[in-house]
Amino acid sequence: MAVTLKDVAERAGVSRAAVSRTFTEGASVSPKTRAKVEEAATALGYSPNMLARSLTTRRTQLVGLVSNNFHNPVFLQIFDLFTRVIQERGLRPLLVNLSDETDPARSVRLLRQYSVDGVIVASSHVPNGFARAFREAGLPVVHAFGRATPRPEVNVVAIDNVGAGAMAAKALISRGYRQLGFIGGPETASTTQDRLLGFRQAAEDAGAHVTASFAGAYSFDAGRAEMGRLLRGQRAQAYFCADDVLSIGALSAVEEAGLKVPQDLGIIGLNDMEMAGWASIGLTTIHQPFEAIVRASIDLIAESFDDPGRSPETHLFPCHVVERRTLRPPPR
Amino acid sequence: MAVTLKDVAERAGVSRAAVSRTFTEGASVSPKTRAKVEEAATALGYSPNMLARSLTTRRTQLVGLVSNNFHNPVFLQIFDLFTRVIQERGLRPLLVNLSDETDPARSVRLLRQYSVDGVIVASSHVPNGFARAFREAGLPVVHAFGRATPRPEVNVVAIDNVGAGAMAAKALISRGYRQLGFIGGPETASTTQDRLLGFRQAAEDAGAHVTASFAGAYSFDAGRAEMGRLLRGQRAQAYFCADDVLSIGALSAVEEAGLKVPQDLGIIGLNDMEMAGWASIGLTTIHQPFEAIVRASIDLIAESFDDPGRSPETHLFPCHVVERRTLRPPPR
Repeated sequence: MAVTLKDVAERAGVSRAAVSRTFTEGASVSPKTRAKVEEAATALGYSPNMLARSLTTRRTQLVGLVSNNFHNPVFLQIFDLFTRVIQERGLRPLLVNLSDETDPARSVRLLRQYSVDGVIVASSHVPNGFARAFREAGLPVVHAFGRATPRPEVNVVAIDNVGAGAMAAKALISRGYRQLGFIGGPETASTTQDRLLGFRQAAEDAGAHVTASFAGAYSFDAGRAEMGRLLRGQRAQAYFCADDVLSIGALSAVEEAGLKVPQDLGIIGLNDMEMAGWASIGLTTIHQPFEAIVRASIDLIAESFDDPGRSPETHLFPCHVVERRTLRPPPR
Repeated sequence: MAVTLKDVAERAGVSRAAVSRTFTEGASVSPKTRAKVEEAATALGYSPNMLARSLTTRRTQLVGLVSNNFHNPVFLQIFDLFTRVIQERGLRPLLVNLSDETDPARSVRLLRQYSVDGVIVASSHVPNGFARAFREAGLPVVHAFGRATPRPEVNVVAIDNVGAGAMAAKALISRGYRQLGFIGGPETASTTQDRLLGFRQAAEDAGAHVTASFAGAYSFDAGRAEMGRLLRGQRAQAYFCADDVLSIGALSAVEEAGLKVPQDLGIIGLNDMEMAGWASIGLTTIHQPFEAIVRASIDLIAESFDDPGRSPETHLFPCHVVERRTLRPPPR
């Protein structure tokens, strides 16, 4: 079991330094040498112990991937992207499920126990205290899907949620809808607040009327319940549901009420998760560029490893409308 | 930054041994002492370095959670359960996404670099070579959703897939269906093979006729395409789709063909993922007990830490049918 770097160097017929460089991320080594070293390492069953090495390099290549979002199907796509891109970079994700956690101090302790090189918070509704506590503990932090603010406490990579709300309003108005509804997720989620702000401003600028209400969660059942409630009163002509899974729940309620989309009612979502494109759903929605957000988050965390004291940055990505079947065509 | 165990002991007014016990999983310490130690540790920003400690204890408390299943929505539920239960036990998941990986040796090297205490493979269709390579590298392995065989190479925790196939056949036959169809996932997936075997045996024992076909993947689009193809030929009276997301794709194809479920055609799925219960779907399906499978997998991996040489075990859990709306009622 105790195969050493020296054994690998001897078998590969290269210097010990060459073996060391082969297993150091970013170090220069010729493809030929790398191939010899990898062959020898595989034959001998050698793997450099990252953890022992971290005691001298102070780098574990571990990234804490922290989320509380395990019920919105879009997060399977997001975890897929994060884990693939983290791996591409020679880093490894230590996944932390915050669903049952309310104490930031415990999460900080956990991440420090494993000496993670940085933390990516992937959720729009992790309580603010978490990202701040990670930063105060000296950990580089990126908040993916976080909120853009004038003076960010941590790095934020996201879409412009206010702009996305305005984009939804303009899409509805261009199709002739004037009585508009907004169905948000939890009223405390920054994404819901910002999307409503942009939606209301753009709608009112265009002389349209907006009523807003909130589902208790970003979930199918919450969207269905809220739309069910709205359909028992005076309904709007079209709704912006601030998330695709809410939209799919709302579509279910509309169908159960015997109404047709888009003939009786228009719906536009936000995310463009895979399911929105399923033939049986066909949701018109605002596309959130997940891959760009994930890649930028990982770029930013990797840059922060080398320069932990730098000021937090905010990267916002543009969205666009994806036309499917849940809005009527623009009037001629 | 260099807060030591001694500093914590002094501040908490307890012995160094008491501090050490507080941070050792499973060690005995009174609630009062634990509270004092945790308060002092938080105040001082102390966290035991698991990685440094692992060099002497040879335990990192890290579990490799290995999967290639990032497109079937049921896996979001499964990752949620795994990460919660792993955390409950004081362990931590190092997530490995195998989607782009074909070389078991690279995965072994990665897991050994981080000195994981064990590996859970969570997927029914990771190539066999992976679990075997992990075991040959001396790592305790549990294959969750793996295949039951007479002489297992690694621990397996799963359902009885042959039995689940038979259960589906009996459910269809008890409702008077006699011309039965089976739609599997990839023909190479052990789950598809075993479910078909049980389905065909039980159907033929009851004098029913079975036609089988395979979708290219466990995905919505594959299920929809395969059912679309079947509906252009001589169709069966009812289909067992070997997975819920396949079933939901198949339902979409049926609706697009202008047919009604269950009036024109019956469908039964397998998994009972959250989405199967959505009001707009209402899929009758076979419930796979995910939480029991996850808990048993983690029990088994934790037991293997202490006894890595023990023989592999197989734990199979029973399933049951969940009635919703996609099968006609039994004939009177």
